[in-house]
Amino acid sequence: MKRHIYLRMESPEKARELFLSRFDLQTMLPPEEIPTAAALGRVTAAPAMARWSSPAVHQAAMDGFAVTAAATFGATPESPRLLAVGREAFPLNTGHPLPPNTDAVIMVEQIPDPMADPITVEHPTFPWQHVRRVGEDLVAGEMVLPEGSRITPWDQGALLAAGVTRLMVRRLPKVAIIPTGSELTPVAELAAEPPPGRLPEFNSVILAGMVAEAGGIPEVRPIVPDDPGALTRALKEAVAAADLVLINAGSSAGTEDYTYQAVASLGEVLVHGVSMMPGKPTLLGVVNGKPVIGNPGYPVSAVLSFEEFAAPLISGLAGLRPAPRPTLMVHPAQNLPSKPGLTEYIRVTLGRVGDKVIATPLPRGAGVITSLVRADGILKVPALNEGLEEDRAVAAELLAPVEDIEGTLVVLGSHDNTLDLLGTLLRRRDPRLRLSSGHVGSLGGLMALRQGRSHLGGSHLFDEETDTYNVPYIQRYLPGLPLKLINLAWRQQGLMVLPGNPKNIRSIPDLTREGVSFINRQRGAGTRVLLDYLLKQEGLTADAVQGYEREEYTHMAVAVNVLSGTADAGLGILAAARALGLDFIPLLPERYDLVVPETTFQDHRFQTLLAVIRSQDFMDAARALGGYDLQDCGKILWEQ
Amino acid sequence: MKRHIYLRMESPEKARELFLSRFDLQTMLPPEEIPTAAALGRVTAAPAMARWSSPAVHQAAMDGFAVTAAATFGATPESPRLLAVGREAFPLNTGHPLPPNTDAVIMVEQIPDPMADPITVEHPTFPWQHVRRVGEDLVAGEMVLPEGSRITPWDQGALLAAGVTRLMVRRLPKVAIIPTGSELTPVAELAAEPPPGRLPEFNSVILAGMVAEAGGIPEVRPIVPDDPGALTRALKEAVAAADLVLINAGSSAGTEDYTYQAVASLGEVLVHGVSMMPGKPTLLGVVNGKPVIGNPGYPVSAVLSFEEFAAPLISGLAGLRPAPRPTLMVHPAQNLPSKPGLTEYIRVTLGRVGDKVIATPLPRGAGVITSLVRADGILKVPALNEGLEEDRAVAAELLAPVEDIEGTLVVLGSHDNTLDLLGTLLRRRDPRLRLSSGHVGSLGGLMALRQGRSHLGGSHLFDEETDTYNVPYIQRYLPGLPLKLINLAWRQQGLMVLPGNPKNIRSIPDLTREGVSFINRQRGAGTRVLLDYLLKQEGLTADAVQGYEREEYTHMAVAVNVLSGTADAGLGILAAARALGLDFIPLLPERYDLVVPETTFQDHRFQTLLAVIRSQDFMDAARALGGYDLQDCGKILWEQ
Repeated sequence: MKRHIYLRMESPEKARELFLSRFDLQTMLPPEEIPTAAALGRVTAAPAMARWSSPAVHQAAMDGFAVTAAATFGATPESPRLLAVGREAFPLNTGHPLPPNTDAVIMVEQIPDPMADPITVEHPTFPWQHVRRVGEDLVAGEMVLPEGSRITPWDQGALLAAGVTRLMVRRLPKVAIIPTGSELTPVAELAAEPPPGRLPEFNSVILAGMVAEAGGIPEVRPIVPDDPGALTRALKEAVAAADLVLINAGSSAGTEDYTYQAVASLGEVLVHGVSMMPGKPTLLGVVNGKPVIGNPGYPVSAVLSFEEFAAPLISGLAGLRPAPRPTLMVHPAQNLPSKPGLTEYIRVTLGRVGDKVIATPLPRGAGVITSLVRADGILKVPALNEGLEEDRAVAAELLAPVEDIEGTLVVLGSHDNTLDLLGTLLRRRDPRLRLSSGHVGSLGGLMALRQGRSHLGGSHLFDEETDTYNVPYIQRYLPGLPLKLINLAWRQQGLMVLPGNPKNIRSIPDLTREGVSFINRQRGAGTRVLLDYLLKQEGLTADAVQGYEREEYTHMAVAVNVLSGTADAGLGILAAARALGLDFIPLLPERYDLVVPETTFQDHRFQTLLAVIRSQDFMDAARALGGYDLQDCGKILWEQ
Repeated sequence: MKRHIYLRMESPEKARELFLSRFDLQTMLPPEEIPTAAALGRVTAAPAMARWSSPAVHQAAMDGFAVTAAATFGATPESPRLLAVGREAFPLNTGHPLPPNTDAVIMVEQIPDPMADPITVEHPTFPWQHVRRVGEDLVAGEMVLPEGSRITPWDQGALLAAGVTRLMVRRLPKVAIIPTGSELTPVAELAAEPPPGRLPEFNSVILAGMVAEAGGIPEVRPIVPDDPGALTRALKEAVAAADLVLINAGSSAGTEDYTYQAVASLGEVLVHGVSMMPGKPTLLGVVNGKPVIGNPGYPVSAVLSFEEFAAPLISGLAGLRPAPRPTLMVHPAQNLPSKPGLTEYIRVTLGRVGDKVIATPLPRGAGVITSLVRADGILKVPALNEGLEEDRAVAAELLAPVEDIEGTLVVLGSHDNTLDLLGTLLRRRDPRLRLSSGHVGSLGGLMALRQGRSHLGGSHLFDEETDTYNVPYIQRYLPGLPLKLINLAWRQQGLMVLPGNPKNIRSIPDLTREGVSFINRQRGAGTRVLLDYLLKQEGLTADAVQGYEREEYTHMAVAVNVLSGTADAGLGILAAARALGLDFIPLLPERYDLVVPETTFQDHRFQTLLAVIRSQDFMDAARALGGYDLQDCGKILWEQ
């Protein structure tokens, strides 16, 4: 088992500089001549000069009659000039060329009877009145566009007006993408879940899209199995066919790390390993004068590495100068420790709560592609730093438009399947609004409200002493905060088990049976509080339940554990069981409320959400999910 | 001659509201299902739900061996566990699926000899250590993307990872573009200048590009001649084939205004005439429930009208929410009077001079498409306003990136053909820098420096008393301003005449001959000062020269007048005559200097420009233009 350890780990900045300095992006690709009409978005490779003037002839600037100005000199209403139509006066419209020997246009509004012949001219006109003269816009030989211009629709118009029907532009770089990995299956061929031992290959789709957005032409090549000879052959072919090669997934320090060998055998490895996270296993090299990038296999790593190294190369070759991402000062919702020595890229959701934009971190795993899908921004923690402190402002690079962030309602708390539904209906009602929901458990939601990190919470905390929901917890954790408790739904809680219930689980005591394993929710989750209550009622203790200590954060994650056989049972809501086709043993209905501080309640964004909650559309859709009782939906149940 | 006068002139805001309120953009087009791999940039028409979990199976999160965690319990270096490869321990790499009955991965680095069999395990591992569990990223049934999401490359990855290989997206609206006008010739068919009486049709290319950028699919239909029946037939066909129809050039109040008739006969005219300039002759209507826009004929009007009415409709149908253009507070370089009652859109170039961004207006004519090509921004003068005041800050909508504006050197003054050359070479040396040159004459350039509206001036003002250039003018108009006078070139001034010199013009006195017409430069131009000097030397007066009062602003414009027969002769530089193939009667060399205030001289941007001026590249290219003597090029000739 021969293993390649990173020879030299470079910082992202140093690695990029080392890499880009090896290529002359302005001259590496020869320019090409293309039709101007097809040049939208392309970049001029040389100044474009007018071939003829625009207008190329004198044109009427108004609707009316072309005349010789001298023929109107001295005209008055008392002694008008009469001009014969077709000989001394020529009817024409805006944009029409002036007939020979005419040098002025009289507006049709100034002719008493424009249908008469001869026409009557009552006022003198002067030469070039209402005429667009030759070259008013562009003069032959004049520069229409400088070198390096990204061509707009009106640039195309100006070029064509000046006779420039073909144009020298920067060539778009061809980028070959080589997916590697014996276990990969092309995603297009997947009608159902990948067969055992196979994984869907989708990174090439991500990379192809990023290549296109950077200004290149992607070409995805066939998947190369884990075989050094095959990869070297594939790389050789790709280098011959393309201007830049991306090898995806072959640059981890694993046994199948053949990218290093392939690049080193055909050319030169410049950088192997970059001190960024995700994105560390990036390889930068050159083969036959062409850049080759070993792009990491985890999708988040692949994306971030692409942005640092491939994107500037591709846009530079295309002559584009993409605008840097906008940034915004934000406050991390929690301490974010980070490993010194690595620049860490933390994906966050953003929402303005009060006068601060709160950045809530998404899962940091490089395999969690939803952490990019859901991200509104990225926090870069410098290598010298040990992390970011809660509530200390830092700059976030924005992935979402600022308008979206301003239009976001942040709900943190317990997970419920109707929250997705609410988000969809909210956006449909007002496309400027979004619901960003974070699943931190009911109690976590109350803590977030206390710390001003969210607009509202979702909670179903049962208090056995008072036999009531949420109020005692709010009184304890949010004393004095003016707020309203608004019901979203009563929902059915119960045990989720495999279809057919093979372990014959019927009640809470069954969870303590030999051979029955359980999957629990995290501390602070209302469902966990409920489980503890139910165990106590039966006179059972936590350690009697095998798997009590294994925690998941959402109903759906619990359901997946049951479906995949990791656990035999979990406590959760009917909607989650139904979504995955599990059997469900109902135990009791419970109340799920929204905890809405008064400041949020007054906010127009929340008022729109409340209207959605109270709409028939929402109630119908929630009922369709199963297990929801909407008798109290939208009602204010309590306030303080 | 039947004419249609605007029935109702609406404000742009009112017109847009009237128009857009007639269509339900969310539901007008049925959504379509497309492959996810082809969905980049499209907008989801419904929430996209995961079809299976991602990962769909438990995966190794590290390179190493998959084991059953329980088999390692109690392992220490002293009493290790030995696991048989292929039966109790399975070598695998990051991303590989876990074999059945394994639940943890031991990193290869922790195995003393990974090539041995059995392997030695010296530390216990716990269940799910280094394992990406089923659904860690996405759980089957979970929402991957909400409705209304514009799909990014990583969205595609997440969808494919969750088995969503096909997707419901908003349909892209098909937009038919009908050019109208009997005088138009398709630009693609133009190998040479359009024949007499014909005009090149290029608006359809501009509009097609704008349709594509707004998110629609453009379809340019054949040019329709000025015939009411033909236009009505073409409109009927287009409405049947497309979702939105743009008729270009048919909505002016001219005799050929058949758009109104066509729309009114097939459907309903909602708005005819909008109080905006350019863009007034816009018609908004509906035929068979589909929007029809009569788009004005002048290119600038066509563009601005499109942006107000067509663009929001197209992007709305596609489900896109384009970001509004960024704005910047700027100071107009001069008073900009505007007609009350019309919202005027003034195109400006922008450059930061000192602590202000100066907005210099471009020509306002709706036919001057270069006013868009060269614009960095647009100032909107509200209808209630009589204009904008010099030096009072207003918001400009930006067309250029802010970086370009910060990197712009503004040179105002006399026109010289080498300025284009300098701009090209400057940008080639540093792509972040631009040269923006405005042609206001030598004296105008000095005035601009005095008012802090430019970084440097270009001047060739001859003073006959001192027999010198520029210095006496600077001492008079810029007293006390620390500056340097840097020579750009000596250039040949002379008379430009038609090839073969048909009027046999040999000297200044010939300009006063019967039948010889002249075209002059504007007041304050150095070339005009020179003419006055030459006339005086010959003992001649201005009124002896026919055409003395006719003014152009650049050498090239003077040359065009001569070429097109508007004048028999003009005074100008050899480079301009040569560019248009005119004959040239040399009169004298003159000095063309740059007037550079000390603050500009210290600026790194100017230092880069100076390096370009002093480069061999520039001198060679200037010599190739003809008529330039570069003996003093780049020398500081004088300072104060």
